[in-house]
Amino acid sequence: MSCVFCAVVAGEAPAIKIYENADYLAILDIRPFTRGHTLVIPKQHTVDLTDTPPETLAAMVTIGQRIARAARQSGLHADGNNVVINDGKAAFQSVFHIHLHVLPRQSGDKLSFAKGMLMRRDPDREESGRLLREALAKLDPAEQD
Amino acid sequence: MSCVFCAVVAGEAPAIKIYENADYLAILDIRPFTRGHTLVIPKQHTVDLTDTPPETLAAMVTIGQRIARAARQSGLHADGNNVVINDGKAAFQSVFHIHLHVLPRQSGDKLSFAKGMLMRRDPDREESGRLLREALAKLDPAEQD
Repeated sequence: MSCVFCAVVAGEAPAIKIYENADYLAILDIRPFTRGHTLVIPKQHTVDLTDTPPETLAAMVTIGQRIARAARQSGLHADGNNVVINDGKAAFQSVFHIHLHVLPRQSGDKLSFAKGMLMRRDPDREESGRLLREALAKLDPAEQD
Repeated sequence: MSCVFCAVVAGEAPAIKIYENADYLAILDIRPFTRGHTLVIPKQHTVDLTDTPPETLAAMVTIGQRIARAARQSGLHADGNNVVINDGKAAFQSVFHIHLHVLPRQSGDKLSFAKGMLMRRDPDREESGRLLREALAKLDPAEQD
């Protein structure tokens, strides 16, 4: 399979899952800029903003918002998040299956953020995944919007 | 009025408009990273991803997608776009009225992109606005999705 995200969706490539429903999957980025750097991926393959249906985009971003909110309440103690779509190679897109980045941020982390852009390594990916899943699960009952 | 985007929405502060409907406004960023750097703003004031309704977010991003598609077809000749929400001060949010950034990008512009992060100046804002509005208008009839 030539698309790595399609392979992840098919269960043929490993990933630390944060969230999954019938149409979307959220996983940790294997080269994170920050701890908890998550990718929200529609299971249906499209490339970028030119061919992705607006409804798909809207649902992808809504899931991203929930993950961003969970990150603030999680053991990652995020104070904010960058939520990013890189649309096209010219905009740093490297996997040509559309995805949304959610990057948990902490106050005063500018230096580690910049370092993360070079290093892209999480000392404990399994734990970052666990913390986000736990916070998402807590978000669900009370805050369905 | 203490919120600069509410002032723009109320017509009390100037802006170069790219798109407007009953609930959303898109304007050029006054300190652009790239030519055509546009902000999509819900007219109803909310702060960030913690208090913005998911439906508002979805509509804001859908408009951003249309602007991103228009930028590729516009006289700005974008090859791609970064579409970004900075959620919280820790994530570089500077105006605390939620907004979506659309940054048209060109192949090989990495250096000018980096320079733009420092300079944040467009040599001809009026022309950039005109080019985007023109491409959006062309997008409308044939490609309503």
